[in-house]
Amino acid sequence: MAHALPVSPLARPLPELGVIRGVRLGAAEAGIRYKGRTDLVLAEFTPGTTVAGVFTQTKCAGAPVDWCRSVLPHGQAGALVVNAGNANVFTGRAGRETCEATAETAAKLAGCSLDAVYLASTGVIGAILPHERITNALPALHTALSETGWEAAARGIMTTDTFPKAAVRTATLNGTTVTIQGIAKGSGMIAPDMATMLAFVATDAALPAPVLQSLLSADVKTTFNCITVDSDTSTSDMVLLFATGAAQNPPVAAEIDALNDAALADFRAALKAVLHDLALLVIRDGEGATKLMNIRVTGAVSDASAWRVGMAIGNSPLVKTAVAGEDANWGRVVMAVGKCGEPADRDTLSVSIGGVCIARDGTVVADYDETPVVAHMKGQEIDIAVDLGLGTGSAQVWSCDLTHGYIDINGSYRS
Amino acid sequence: MAHALPVSPLARPLPELGVIRGVRLGAAEAGIRYKGRTDLVLAEFTPGTTVAGVFTQTKCAGAPVDWCRSVLPHGQAGALVVNAGNANVFTGRAGRETCEATAETAAKLAGCSLDAVYLASTGVIGAILPHERITNALPALHTALSETGWEAAARGIMTTDTFPKAAVRTATLNGTTVTIQGIAKGSGMIAPDMATMLAFVATDAALPAPVLQSLLSADVKTTFNCITVDSDTSTSDMVLLFATGAAQNPPVAAEIDALNDAALADFRAALKAVLHDLALLVIRDGEGATKLMNIRVTGAVSDASAWRVGMAIGNSPLVKTAVAGEDANWGRVVMAVGKCGEPADRDTLSVSIGGVCIARDGTVVADYDETPVVAHMKGQEIDIAVDLGLGTGSAQVWSCDLTHGYIDINGSYRS
Repeated sequence: MAHALPVSPLARPLPELGVIRGVRLGAAEAGIRYKGRTDLVLAEFTPGTTVAGVFTQTKCAGAPVDWCRSVLPHGQAGALVVNAGNANVFTGRAGRETCEATAETAAKLAGCSLDAVYLASTGVIGAILPHERITNALPALHTALSETGWEAAARGIMTTDTFPKAAVRTATLNGTTVTIQGIAKGSGMIAPDMATMLAFVATDAALPAPVLQSLLSADVKTTFNCITVDSDTSTSDMVLLFATGAAQNPPVAAEIDALNDAALADFRAALKAVLHDLALLVIRDGEGATKLMNIRVTGAVSDASAWRVGMAIGNSPLVKTAVAGEDANWGRVVMAVGKCGEPADRDTLSVSIGGVCIARDGTVVADYDETPVVAHMKGQEIDIAVDLGLGTGSAQVWSCDLTHGYIDINGSYRS
Repeated sequence: MAHALPVSPLARPLPELGVIRGVRLGAAEAGIRYKGRTDLVLAEFTPGTTVAGVFTQTKCAGAPVDWCRSVLPHGQAGALVVNAGNANVFTGRAGRETCEATAETAAKLAGCSLDAVYLASTGVIGAILPHERITNALPALHTALSETGWEAAARGIMTTDTFPKAAVRTATLNGTTVTIQGIAKGSGMIAPDMATMLAFVATDAALPAPVLQSLLSADVKTTFNCITVDSDTSTSDMVLLFATGAAQNPPVAAEIDALNDAALADFRAALKAVLHDLALLVIRDGEGATKLMNIRVTGAVSDASAWRVGMAIGNSPLVKTAVAGEDANWGRVVMAVGKCGEPADRDTLSVSIGGVCIARDGTVVADYDETPVVAHMKGQEIDIAVDLGLGTGSAQVWSCDLTHGYIDINGSYRS
């Protein structure tokens, strides 16, 4: 998009961002596709920084995703390079060469090994990404890196995003206060099913890579993997989590049961809050979004089944257009439940909107008064709750409405 | 929609409709939801008429779908009642009572048994359908039935449809010329996955119900089950096929291998053509549609896999908005292939638009000239071909673009 989009009505201001000791970062104008804005981000991590990552499950992943997957087993991070405007996807050998050239330049600047460099690209699919634009811009960018470069980085990774996205939390880990801070971008092609779009989170905690990976993989499931803007899963999705160890908390064993050990509970809660914040910010900047949908599914035969029902509701164009039109058309929620192939029984199904139970036991409730529901639909946050009446499985999913803005943005994205 | 929608730019005029001996039909204004237009259709079939049907696979089927499923095993049809404006879905006991009262009235008028009455309803989900509006209107409608009532019936079943849909073919069956004629409606909540929306087809051929069912089930798979407007599967989908026997062709054994017997080949080809015509007409009237997408998938590991890849492309909001914007954004086709979970290998994938091979072996073809593709995108029919390079599975899927019109129609459907 050459012209600037209006800021999403669901936007949130940036939180007060701190520093993560051991991380220096910044952004520059590399002229990759956009004019007059930053589009290249570099972060440098202190030696010993560990890393965890989750990636798109697409069969057509971009070259940077392939690169990150191949280096992740080493578990060490020295640098991260992200560009916006060109996704370096479906670019064959040229795409791989761009990754190699970028990583070589970044490794040299950061003084780390090649397999400690992480790469991410976002933007148009199928266009060759000339690596010179990146490698030529990196040295000056490296010189300007700063511990306070987080906002610049959050802005530098934007594509059709209308506001920068960041989240921060602190936690106590083995008696030491640590900070977790992250940035993310959206905002179309968002349906991260088993992976996610671009988000980068760092902490000054000292944590072994396997522990970091356990925590990240678990919590992405209920945060980034529970959001959808348009059901279209990107070829570039990734979340990377870096732990610099600069907080110098007492060591955490790599063999710990990361998801159940009490020593990690507070850290995990804070990490999950950061991931949740970032995921919701992505929905709040969903292309064309004017309403945030909170979809709660209970009574399913399993959590996985509840998730699929929730995603069917969150992805339904008819539900999303009804929400856009402020129409409490709950029949479309019933339709979405019915179509998705998960166990459901029309006659045990109940549907609530805005906390008002509308339908139960296969029909509308007696004396249903639409007035409070109509009022709820006029708000910015729409709560839809479905109980399937079959079991104890539950899930929470977040989506946004489908509006003219989405059509405007995506009918002319490349032009 | 209280106001009339503009006619789809993809509309086709009605073909010259004939009569199907043994079928009399017509439409009336029952005032179910719409004002000033017909919304109730009655068809009466000659004694001995056989019937086949396929129905929505949703878990939240409407009461008329339940009714038809329960009577279909009898294989005989005497009457069909269809109303538009109210789908009689998620209406509990009241919905069942409406079906019973409607069927009783229709059976009495047509002089047939209760289990020879077929019912279909289309429109808003979750609103009680007062059966008196139907049962009060049926006697006068019955008096006015005519062999030439097909166009009236095609119009009487419309909801957000902008033009009536019909198809007709003749075939030779055991030396006798028979006619197959059908009508259908769309035009949102169209993703018939293993079933279909409302379509009614009749023939004067004499065919046993099991033979009819074999043919219908097989050919729906490659016609109605290969179209999608918006990925939302209706709670009311059905296709019914009636065979009056009035052509008096020599008998066909019920035990025949319907899909492979040479005597049925011509009939089957004609039936498939009628189903194909009707399915494409539904896409041509997809809500807000301005472009018809022909999606051809080859080289998949199986036909079923090819179908799922095709539907992923046809359902992708990003592909559909790109088509609406006349943007040859083939990267989004790659994205849709990658996300759908079917076996695919980026490095053996090729993509063509308008017959021009754009990408092959994991990257854009050398010297790709977008000019002819840009010209193709300006047309009304957009051909997208994907070869996965893995096997011999193939499928053809039809979809339409996603435009402001879809948002307009569905943001205010109930109001």
